[in-house]
This record gives sequence, structure tokens and C-alpha cells, in this order.
Amino acid sequence: MKGIYQINLKHIIILIAAVISSGYGFAQSSQASVVEDFKPSVTNQPGKQFPQVNSQRIVRAGIAAPQALKVQLDIGGKKYDMVKDDKGVWTGESLPQDEGFHYYQLNIDGASVPDPGSLTFYGAGRTGSGIEIPAYDRDFYALKEVPHGLVSENNYFSTLTNAWRRCFVYTPPGYFAESKTRYPVLYLQHGSFEDETGWAIQGKANLILDNLIADKKAVPMIIVMDNGYANKPTDNASAAPGNNTRPVSIFDEVMINEIIPMIDGKFRTVANRQHRAIAGLSMGANQTMRIVMNHLDKFSHYGGFSGTSNYPSEDAVDPTTFLEGKFKDGAMVNKKFRVFWLGLGTKEPKPFPGSVGAFRAMLDKQGIKHVYYQSPNTGHEWLTWRRDLQQYAALLFK
Amino acid sequence: MKGIYQINLKHIIILIAAVISSGYGFAQSSQASVVEDFKPSVTNQPGKQFPQVNSQRIVRAGIAAPQALKVQLDIGGKKYDMVKDDKGVWTGESLPQDEGFHYYQLNIDGASVPDPGSLTFYGAGRTGSGIEIPAYDRDFYALKEVPHGLVSENNYFSTLTNAWRRCFVYTPPGYFAESKTRYPVLYLQHGSFEDETGWAIQGKANLILDNLIADKKAVPMIIVMDNGYANKPTDNASAAPGNNTRPVSIFDEVMINEIIPMIDGKFRTVANRQHRAIAGLSMGANQTMRIVMNHLDKFSHYGGFSGTSNYPSEDAVDPTTFLEGKFKDGAMVNKKFRVFWLGLGTKEPKPFPGSVGAFRAMLDKQGIKHVYYQSPNTGHEWLTWRRDLQQYAALLFK
Repeated sequence: MKGIYQINLKHIIILIAAVISSGYGFAQSSQASVVEDFKPSVTNQPGKQFPQVNSQRIVRAGIAAPQALKVQLDIGGKKYDMVKDDKGVWTGESLPQDEGFHYYQLNIDGASVPDPGSLTFYGAGRTGSGIEIPAYDRDFYALKEVPHGLVSENNYFSTLTNAWRRCFVYTPPGYFAESKTRYPVLYLQHGSFEDETGWAIQGKANLILDNLIADKKAVPMIIVMDNGYANKPTDNASAAPGNNTRPVSIFDEVMINEIIPMIDGKFRTVANRQHRAIAGLSMGANQTMRIVMNHLDKFSHYGGFSGTSNYPSEDAVDPTTFLEGKFKDGAMVNKKFRVFWLGLGTKEPKPFPGSVGAFRAMLDKQGIKHVYYQSPNTGHEWLTWRRDLQQYAALLFK
Repeated sequence: MKGIYQINLKHIIILIAAVISSGYGFAQSSQASVVEDFKPSVTNQPGKQFPQVNSQRIVRAGIAAPQALKVQLDIGGKKYDMVKDDKGVWTGESLPQDEGFHYYQLNIDGASVPDPGSLTFYGAGRTGSGIEIPAYDRDFYALKEVPHGLVSENNYFSTLTNAWRRCFVYTPPGYFAESKTRYPVLYLQHGSFEDETGWAIQGKANLILDNLIADKKAVPMIIVMDNGYANKPTDNASAAPGNNTRPVSIFDEVMINEIIPMIDGKFRTVANRQHRAIAGLSMGANQTMRIVMNHLDKFSHYGGFSGTSNYPSEDAVDPTTFLEGKFKDGAMVNKKFRVFWLGLGTKEPKPFPGSVGAFRAMLDKQGIKHVYYQSPNTGHEWLTWRRDLQQYAALLFK
């Protein structure tokens, strides 16, 4: 009996230790498990003390709300009750979060509002709070003492949508120093309920490329980040994300007939398919796959980050009917693409693993070569997509 | 008696009409005076219905906060109680606001938070809500079908502050189309509790210049918008706006020794004093006046928007001692400046009218030529400064 008892106790201790070290289970009910090494987040507004993050990846929010009855931190799909001190300041902790960038908000007596301590980011259909949980590999998107490219804001009038549109354009270091060199272009799209600001702000596309180029791991390139929402003028009234009526997107036409000619006219690009790549995340992966397959004369590289055009289906993909049979001739597809690239985070929720998996099975069946990358311990979030971009950009135009 | 009675009644009617039409007095106590032609603000997030503005320049805020006890709209230095409907949505109106752009926030049971309906802007020491009250002359900063320049984000490492810094750079239309033309440069600074984002976002500097250049009212120029907070490395911990300890600013040195050489190295500038202008608003007016007077070898144009370096004093300015006697020799000052420009809104609070007035009296006494512009019906806010920029930029480099 003694032996068995000892083994069980050991197991229990291991179990408790595992629970404590993971931060799960005890985080809310006991302060004992929370390590008091919180620091203001790097995504805070200048001088703001809250929110904070500790070494366990726990987020501690804080806000003065003296007359409030109930204040909650709303992050990662969970709401955490906060507690008021005698000065009227509420604080509260989340469970440990994944590494990387997360949207979040506060809830004050039923009102969902941005945290006044956080910088703001456009995503989840609103300009709101975001927080960065430092990742083990954060060096690849860090602002470092290397030559920096520029991100410029471009306003342009779109005849197809009868509206002003905007894109951000990354030009690599050296673009301005000389005046003759022409560059290849990557068209890089955001996901649903996001906009053209996502990739250059929370996506850190410019810093990822600056670092890759400095390390000679990527060739200098221009990156164009436009808005994936584009509707016929008659549909514009209902075009806002979050609206229930779904206007018909004409983004494909806007990309081919307006964005690409504008970029080739305004910047020193190499304006041919060999020097043009396209990629997108989630909804953007879906959109750009359709664009690239319908315009193989325009692109030679494709990147699908956390998405494929069979979304949300997890069923087997039939190459004779999918996208009007564009994947039917595997040999032709192989010939057209210099890079066909797919990425997924290991913690992505349904239906992404099944949907991307079904698409990949079809590629394999068709003998279509592709690169598949898995981002460790990240979900359907920006750290996955930053890593995707780093991996994908390193393969382009080579 | 009849005559007197009629006159008095007429006076009373005129008085009531005036009160109603101005919106003052009755706005809070009676709905009768509020014209129900509210529209979502142009500064709202996509698809958001609140906040709204009506033709009387009244702001109506709205937010769902079912469990809240008290919700207020906090704008223009006043807090307006909002009222809850049976669905838990609070709405409430301000008094009429000045035309132009205003920072504001909501207060929910004592918590001051950004309005989730508004886009966010950096100012008043925080990233928070802002609202645009359409101005009668809004066409000059409207996004129109004219050639557009680019605003680019430039990260650079500053040795003097031992920190990463950022500036936004406007390059005029045509800068990219050809590769040889060199351009004059305007260095344009924000005010206190603001940052390098202000001029290109709520200031609309890029659109103002695009429109001026299209109308041939201004020469194409580069505009550099940097951050006016710059401290010695040892002071960095306390450098955040809102901090009580005031570190010693070394912005003058950063401007002269780091920013200007970087811009002249990175962009196609005409790198001499004849083709270099400087201007700033409020704190920035104060800073840039000191910079220009200490570096007359570097600049030939100065613009002070709602501020002068004698701030906050309203006392007479003694040219023999002020700024170490830099204005003592009026003839020399006249010789050095192609444009010496001051602007002020007609509704600016103390001490601005007195302080700028005292400074102007000194200029007059010294025989120093200058342009003085007054923005009608605006206070110490962005519409004043947009108008200042439009007026000032039209005079530069001619």
C-alpha cells in the first residue's frame, strides 16, 4: 500500500504543479499562483500603468470607476470580474494568454468600451484596445537598429466603388536613396472585420521585412496593404463590417483593375507576374486565392495565412468543381507558381484546421507542390500571421 | 403705452429667437430647441450610429450600458448627463460646439473612457475619442479628386535621446513620379499632450497641402511632423506627457542635429535656409520660435500658431532680454525672415490672446514685419491650426 500511496501523492503533486505553472484553474480563485512581476504592456499609451502583463502571460487590467457596480476584463472570449479597492480603482487578472497580440475591451456596468490605458487598433470590427504578450521569438518583429523602409498612406479614388479608398505601402530601405531600382511587389491582405491598417500596425509587416532584408533573408520588395472591403456603389450604404446584409464584394475587380495599375504607376515596381506576389490572412487568404487563380497572368506567388477558399467547409475538396476547376490541372498549377504557401497556427479553432486540411489533401491528390508552415502555440491571431509573413516573404522572388 | 408695449414684446421675441437659434440655454432643459437632423459624425468608426451631430452643432452621444447608474458626455470642458432608455441605451446632448475638431470622452459610473463609437486620436495626453463638427469652410481640408501626396512613417534611432523616435513625412504629389526634383521643407510641430500623429490625422496637413498645391496656391513642399517631446536618456523614465516631473527638453538639439540631417539625407530636399520653414502650434509654436531664433542660419520662415515663446506671460515683452535679445535688432530680424507669421483663434482662452498680443506689440515696437491671421469663431483647437497651416503654407518659399 505504501508504494501505491507514494505514487499517487507524487502524481497529485505533479498535477498541482502543472496546474499552477500553467496558470490555469487557480488564477481566478487564488492569488497565490499569480507571480507578481507585472509590467505595463508595450501596447500601453505613453505613461499608462495599466494594463500589465506578467511572466505567466496573465493580463492585469486596471481602471478608476468609483461609482461602478461591476467591471470586467473581456479578453480571449472570456470575461473576468475585477475588484474595486478603497480608492475606486478596479483591477483584475485574466487566465494566461497565448503569446502575441490580442484584442480586448473592458466592460463597465454593461458598457463594452476601450481601455483608456491601451493604444487602439482596428480589428474585430472596431477601433479598440489591444495587448501584446511578449513572444519567445519577438526579435523577428522588433524595432532594431537596421535600415528601415517607409510605410506610406495612399488615398485614391476608386471608380468601381465610387468611393475614396486607402492603402498603406511599404517601400524597402534604399527605395528613396536611389532613384532607378525597381522592386517586386507583395499584395498583402487583412482578415474579416479588419482593415488596411492591420498589417502595418499590429501585423508589424514593415519591421518584419526590415529585419529580413537586413539579415539578407528576403529580397527588398514593396508591400501593398489595401482594404479588402469593396462593394458596388449601390451597396455602399450597407458596406460597413458588422452589418448583417452582405453586399456583393467587387474586391477582385478593384485589385486587378484599380490597385495594381495605380501601384505600378506610382511606385518603381517590376510590373510583371514573375515579380508579383499576393497573400492574405483568413478572409484575405480566401479572397487572394480566388484572385490569384483567376489571374495567373498577374501573379506567381501565393500565400494563404489561416484560410483557404473552401472555408468554412471541412469536406473533401473536389478539384473538378472547386473554383470552377482551377486546380484540376495540377501540372499547370505547379508550372504557374514559384511559391504556393499555406500557414496555420497549432491552436486555431474549428473550422480552420479541417478546412485548410481538406484543401491541402486536395493539393496533395493533385500533386500540387506547396509549403505548409505551422505556427507553434498560436491561434487565429496576429502572431500566427506575423510568423507566416516572415516565413513566406523569405521565399519570394528568388 | 401701446407703442412701448409693442417694442418690449418685439425685444423679447428677438431675445427668445436668438437664444433658440444659438442653441444656448434651452438645449439641456427642453428638447423643443434641439433640431432633429442628427447624423452620425464623419469621425465615427465604420457603421457606428453614435456619436451624432446636428445642424445646431449639438453632439448627441449614445452608448449601451444597461447596469450603469450615471453616464455623461464629457466635451468642451463640460459634462452632460445622459438618459437611459428601456433597452439600457444612454443618450444625451451637449450644448452647441464650435466648428471643427474636438477631443471628448464618456464617463460611465466614474470611469472616463473612449466612446466605442468614435475613431481614436492622440491628444490631451491620451489616445481617445474625437468628433468633427462640420465647418463652413471645410472644403479646404476635404479629400478631393486632386493629385495626392503621401504621408510616410519614419522610424529612426536618436542617439541624443538614446531612443527610437518617429516622424511622419508628407511628400507632395509628383515626388515619386519623377526622380530628380528637390523640394523645400516645412518642419511642423504639434502642441503639448499631443504627438507626431496629430498634424497628419486631425490636423489634415496632407489634404490641406494637396488642395493648395492643386489650386496652385502653394509650391510643392515636403512637410516633416516629428514628436516635440525629447529628453536626455537619463530623463526618459519621466518623459511621458502627464507626468508631473518635467524633464529638460532637448528637442532643439534633436531637431538641429538629428532630424534635419536625417531628412536631408533620406529625401530630395533643398538643404539650405532659403528652402527651410518651421512652424508649430501652442507648445510647438513656443519651441519652434526658440529653435528658429537660435538657428537663423537654418531657416527663413517661421509660423507660430496659437503661441509664442513668452507664454504664459501676458506682460510687455522686453526685446533686450527676451530670448537673450534675439529680437533686439529689428532690421536684422526683418532681413533674415522671408515670412514671420502668427495666428490665433478669435475664441482662444486666456492667456493666449494676451500673451500673443504682448509679443506682437514687441514686434511692432521693433519694426519687425509679420503676418497676423485670426481664425473666426475657433478656440485653442485644430480648426484654428488647420486654417493657420492653409494661410501660412500659401506664403512659403515664394
